[in-house]
Amino acid sequence: MHTRSPLTRTLLFVATCSLIASTSARAEDPLPSWNDGPRKSALVRFVSSVVEEGGTNYVSAAERIAVFDNDGCLWAEQPVYFQLQFAIDRVKQLAVDHPEWKTEQPFKAVFDGDRKALAAAGEEGVLKLVMASHAGMTTEEFAAVVKDWLRTAKHPRFDRPYCELVYQPMLEVLSYLRANEFKTYIVSGGGVDFMRVFAEEVYGVPPEQVVGSSIATKFEVRNGKPVLVRLAEIDFINDKTGKPVGIHKFIGRRPIAAFGNSDGDLEMLQWTTAGQGARFGMIVHHTDAQREWAYDRQSHIGRLDKALDEAETHGWNVVDMKRDWNRVFSFAE
Amino acid sequence: MHTRSPLTRTLLFVATCSLIASTSARAEDPLPSWNDGPRKSALVRFVSSVVEEGGTNYVSAAERIAVFDNDGCLWAEQPVYFQLQFAIDRVKQLAVDHPEWKTEQPFKAVFDGDRKALAAAGEEGVLKLVMASHAGMTTEEFAAVVKDWLRTAKHPRFDRPYCELVYQPMLEVLSYLRANEFKTYIVSGGGVDFMRVFAEEVYGVPPEQVVGSSIATKFEVRNGKPVLVRLAEIDFINDKTGKPVGIHKFIGRRPIAAFGNSDGDLEMLQWTTAGQGARFGMIVHHTDAQREWAYDRQSHIGRLDKALDEAETHGWNVVDMKRDWNRVFSFAE
Repeated sequence: MHTRSPLTRTLLFVATCSLIASTSARAEDPLPSWNDGPRKSALVRFVSSVVEEGGTNYVSAAERIAVFDNDGCLWAEQPVYFQLQFAIDRVKQLAVDHPEWKTEQPFKAVFDGDRKALAAAGEEGVLKLVMASHAGMTTEEFAAVVKDWLRTAKHPRFDRPYCELVYQPMLEVLSYLRANEFKTYIVSGGGVDFMRVFAEEVYGVPPEQVVGSSIATKFEVRNGKPVLVRLAEIDFINDKTGKPVGIHKFIGRRPIAAFGNSDGDLEMLQWTTAGQGARFGMIVHHTDAQREWAYDRQSHIGRLDKALDEAETHGWNVVDMKRDWNRVFSFAE
Repeated sequence: MHTRSPLTRTLLFVATCSLIASTSARAEDPLPSWNDGPRKSALVRFVSSVVEEGGTNYVSAAERIAVFDNDGCLWAEQPVYFQLQFAIDRVKQLAVDHPEWKTEQPFKAVFDGDRKALAAAGEEGVLKLVMASHAGMTTEEFAAVVKDWLRTAKHPRFDRPYCELVYQPMLEVLSYLRANEFKTYIVSGGGVDFMRVFAEEVYGVPPEQVVGSSIATKFEVRNGKPVLVRLAEIDFINDKTGKPVGIHKFIGRRPIAAFGNSDGDLEMLQWTTAGQGARFGMIVHHTDAQREWAYDRQSHIGRLDKALDEAETHGWNVVDMKRDWNRVFSFAE
């Protein structure tokens, strides 16, 4: 009965093992933090259909570009955008060299903790804070400052480093797409040089796949060493209508999937899903005040109003965070 | 004697075949159009050293970024930059709708074939030609126009489509680097949307790895369909000091290898090779009037003067096209 050669047996053993491995991989849910329901199944259906060779929706791996907003889509954005908090903390650090800030807005508001005055300073005020905290140094110096802040600063509500406030279900989406040979990009209104410091470690997204707002830089040779100096001058705002512009500029082809959460992502969703062939749009709706926050049409941060209205027309999938996610942050079971 | 099972025999056969394949792959020269000599061996030494795991020069695959200028480095640039020829041809096509061009410079110079007047129009004149030919349409319309031109236009000296005037030795460098897990980027003063039309097919460089000069685009919804409209407004000039700026903006990390051919690449070479660890800089010197062109310090196109002076100081490898390449274009044996 045992006429099989050792080699044959080894081969059969290997074949059996692969079979087990592939069965268990199939059985393993790539999106465990997502409750079963229409959102999860829409995503799985889309991905399965574009990777199916010979299928009507098949898309070559090179064209599998997926874009993700960052604030409110991959990590939280309350009670203030994390990058604005970085600017505020940095301004406080630099205050010793700027006695004039004691009486000058919006700096005074920062030192007084005066939220009303800060809000009253408006966009121009925010721009002043950003320029004071983000410019006037080399690109390498800036990266080091951001790195240090991410290591030490803590979120006021959760008392954890900001990088821990990433959404576990979205990390799973990123991995799931990459496992299906998608190239995942961040396309955010946030600063590109701010995000690039942590995007690779936190999201698995390398620097060259981060698209964001930027300030101008200038090439200089200092003591024989070439450097790039960050200027107090806006280069590009990658928000709203700027998002499809940024996608075209940096990626040069139209994505087939877009993930956002606010009206800032409206045009990116429109641009992505208006392309030919299978397309996927998803909006994270913040509906969970207990585990995270609940806000939409009236919020100053991450307002979701027009995009929510348009979602049905375009067939975008609106995630109900409270119902669709069985876990929000990885630290909270 | 024949006690081996059919499976064993099959396995041995497969093993023998792979052995043959791998031996022949090792014996095969990845750079056959390069003559043996210091340039070829410097490149091979650099690549071998950065991929050697555990070696002192080892660089992880993610950091293996190589940047290439396009005009005069990957394809020819004489007697005029090919993109300028495209602009000229396009202006002639559009002339029927622009009777005013008959008397207006630099357009008149184009119709009269008056090179002197065209040269006299200077940068401002070139800009006018570029805007007239590159703006005022959607990004998709522009790509179609470029595609059509590349299909039909022919180079005056070689009477071949412009895309055939690529340097065979440089195509081999691109493939060689990619086989060693480098990510190859084009970083050119040329228009990004012009190059993206052919870069993937001709060089194997996907759109998202093309960095270049750009004009501004604007998002619009036309008849319910989102489009990006090209405006008659410069967005970014990716040349000279702009090259390290563009590299930082689009790639977000410093390359470890840079290939150029003119003073327009000087700062890119400086920026690349000033980084820590193993670095590689290469300059293609046009020395072959017979097979291509010979020009350097005095040329208006692709002037190579300061970068040639600095090459020795920085240890950049200057390719002598005549001596180092046994083949220039793939169509010419």
